[in-house]
Amino acid sequence: MKINNLHAVILAGGSGTRFWPASRSNRPKQFLNLVGKESLFRQTIRRIASKVPAGNIWIVTNRRYQKEIKRQVTGFAGRPPKGGVRSSQILWEPQGKNTAPAIGWAASRIHARDPRAVMVILPSDHLIQNERAFLNALEKAVKLARANHLVTFGIVPTRAETGYGYLKTKKAGGILRVERFIEKPDLARAKRFAADKNYFWNSGMFVWKTETILEAFRKYLPLIYAARGDMLKAWPKLPAISIDYGILEKARNVAAVAADIGWSDLGSWESLSGILPKDRHGNSLKGNVTALDCRDILVWADKRLVAAIGVQDLVVIDTPDALLVCHKHRSQDVKKLVETLKKREARVC
Amino acid sequence: MKINNLHAVILAGGSGTRFWPASRSNRPKQFLNLVGKESLFRQTIRRIASKVPAGNIWIVTNRRYQKEIKRQVTGFAGRPPKGGVRSSQILWEPQGKNTAPAIGWAASRIHARDPRAVMVILPSDHLIQNERAFLNALEKAVKLARANHLVTFGIVPTRAETGYGYLKTKKAGGILRVERFIEKPDLARAKRFAADKNYFWNSGMFVWKTETILEAFRKYLPLIYAARGDMLKAWPKLPAISIDYGILEKARNVAAVAADIGWSDLGSWESLSGILPKDRHGNSLKGNVTALDCRDILVWADKRLVAAIGVQDLVVIDTPDALLVCHKHRSQDVKKLVETLKKREARVC
Repeated sequence: MKINNLHAVILAGGSGTRFWPASRSNRPKQFLNLVGKESLFRQTIRRIASKVPAGNIWIVTNRRYQKEIKRQVTGFAGRPPKGGVRSSQILWEPQGKNTAPAIGWAASRIHARDPRAVMVILPSDHLIQNERAFLNALEKAVKLARANHLVTFGIVPTRAETGYGYLKTKKAGGILRVERFIEKPDLARAKRFAADKNYFWNSGMFVWKTETILEAFRKYLPLIYAARGDMLKAWPKLPAISIDYGILEKARNVAAVAADIGWSDLGSWESLSGILPKDRHGNSLKGNVTALDCRDILVWADKRLVAAIGVQDLVVIDTPDALLVCHKHRSQDVKKLVETLKKREARVC
Repeated sequence: MKINNLHAVILAGGSGTRFWPASRSNRPKQFLNLVGKESLFRQTIRRIASKVPAGNIWIVTNRRYQKEIKRQVTGFAGRPPKGGVRSSQILWEPQGKNTAPAIGWAASRIHARDPRAVMVILPSDHLIQNERAFLNALEKAVKLARANHLVTFGIVPTRAETGYGYLKTKKAGGILRVERFIEKPDLARAKRFAADKNYFWNSGMFVWKTETILEAFRKYLPLIYAARGDMLKAWPKLPAISIDYGILEKARNVAAVAADIGWSDLGSWESLSGILPKDRHGNSLKGNVTALDCRDILVWADKRLVAAIGVQDLVVIDTPDALLVCHKHRSQDVKKLVETLKKREARVC
């Protein structure tokens, strides 16, 4: 069952180097098949497609991913969007400007088509393992949005994660009002938050009426609001600012829906490794891999045979032109490595 | 200065899987550039070429290495053998039969050409880092050989190695007589041997007159002796036996020359790693390799970029169609791995 007037905005402009060498500058994480048989981007579209007709799916992305987007939006079989997404529904950012300009652009385009529209903002590089729970939370969020709230999906914490932002909420009149946005906490605070049912992870997924968010842009980000007549022309001068920082931390009408949906932002090879199925030795092996006496390793083979002997806690990522061998607990340093490589090996970054 | 009547017999028929995936069934260890810029096989020929004219260099090898041998014996520049080795000096074994038949075959061929010949037997898959010391030991060995001894090169042990065979010697009349051949000892015995100046490693290098060794064949391996008229025809029925076991352990005229020549049999990636130059973190990196916080790793990159982060004691061997990632102390298990692979992945073995 589709939800009336609902539009989906898929944010697919993000760059990132944490999944190098599988990800490259022209093919970041959202376009990779990290979990399951489709890219996170395609999973994001497929997930929302039961609630939103193809004509209401919007994609905001960067020009440099044009080739990849073209390849990925076509060919959806069975479920909508059957014919893919029309090119008028793809907004090509000339440069990355964080989430606020992207959302402002999409909001004004959607509002022009449907002044009663409700929009759901979906990052395309996260994993959601429980689709049913996600769609239930979405239904709740839409109801709150229709009552003029800016709604965030508050992910129920499953551990004391220091890598995420948190929402502090307070229940009032049956609604979870967001009192505060908290940046990545230290471990002691993260532990406190994880044990307190008023705290949630900030997932970056939002629902609101275009009318409500445009009013918030007018109030808190007037430069972006004023640019909506010709966003492309104004783009270079727009501030690069997140919707969280630019609007949500200031607005008084922010509400949350609690979402226990198997969410992960997949921030590194290690975090992916925590999600993937494993054999009885804790190994996740993809492709033509032979492991002899190995424990807790993640191997992604491409076309070649990969053989591993007597190693543990390793990540081995094999691609046609670059190979990564990394200690699992050091996979956050892939980003650092790629920064170094970019200077002299740009062709493989 | 060449040594009169000296012939060199290069044993190049050995197979082996310990250097997989760099080595393959049609390109075993002796043909790889493991240390330095030339293969061990070419280094073996080049090393002896100052003492033996090209016409006196004989190669005993397996038919299946024909292509590799052709490529490797030609094109020696500067030093002899200038024009390579004549094809009549290459003896093609129809099957591997260990060292005794190979040496018997070479001995009878050389003896037919020069009844006063002295021959030096040189395995082509070992490393000798001190060429000068080797040539000095050779001169001594030739002298002993002319006095009717079967001479072995006794390598002065540098550690309590349990992977090698040992010679027990006794000095008598200025000569190191070999009293006993000892198979790979346990650690306690190896320690004792390494501390005792009468014990040496058995290098598999030998020097003797063709006349002396043929007489020994007649006495101890009459089947091989009898076959010398048509070795190729007799080959399938010859026993596969080593010269050590078949003759040297039985003969009474075995002598040794002590050789402190920087010898290694390069038995595994780990032992190669012990030989190669290292950076200040103990890493040996060949090819386009970036290592971040790594210690004591050996990386052989081929054409691709290899990046390593936060790992230690690893061996990473990158080839176009197969990749090995192995704990350094487990590199003896490469052999086991390849046995398994042969059953289902013969094309990469």
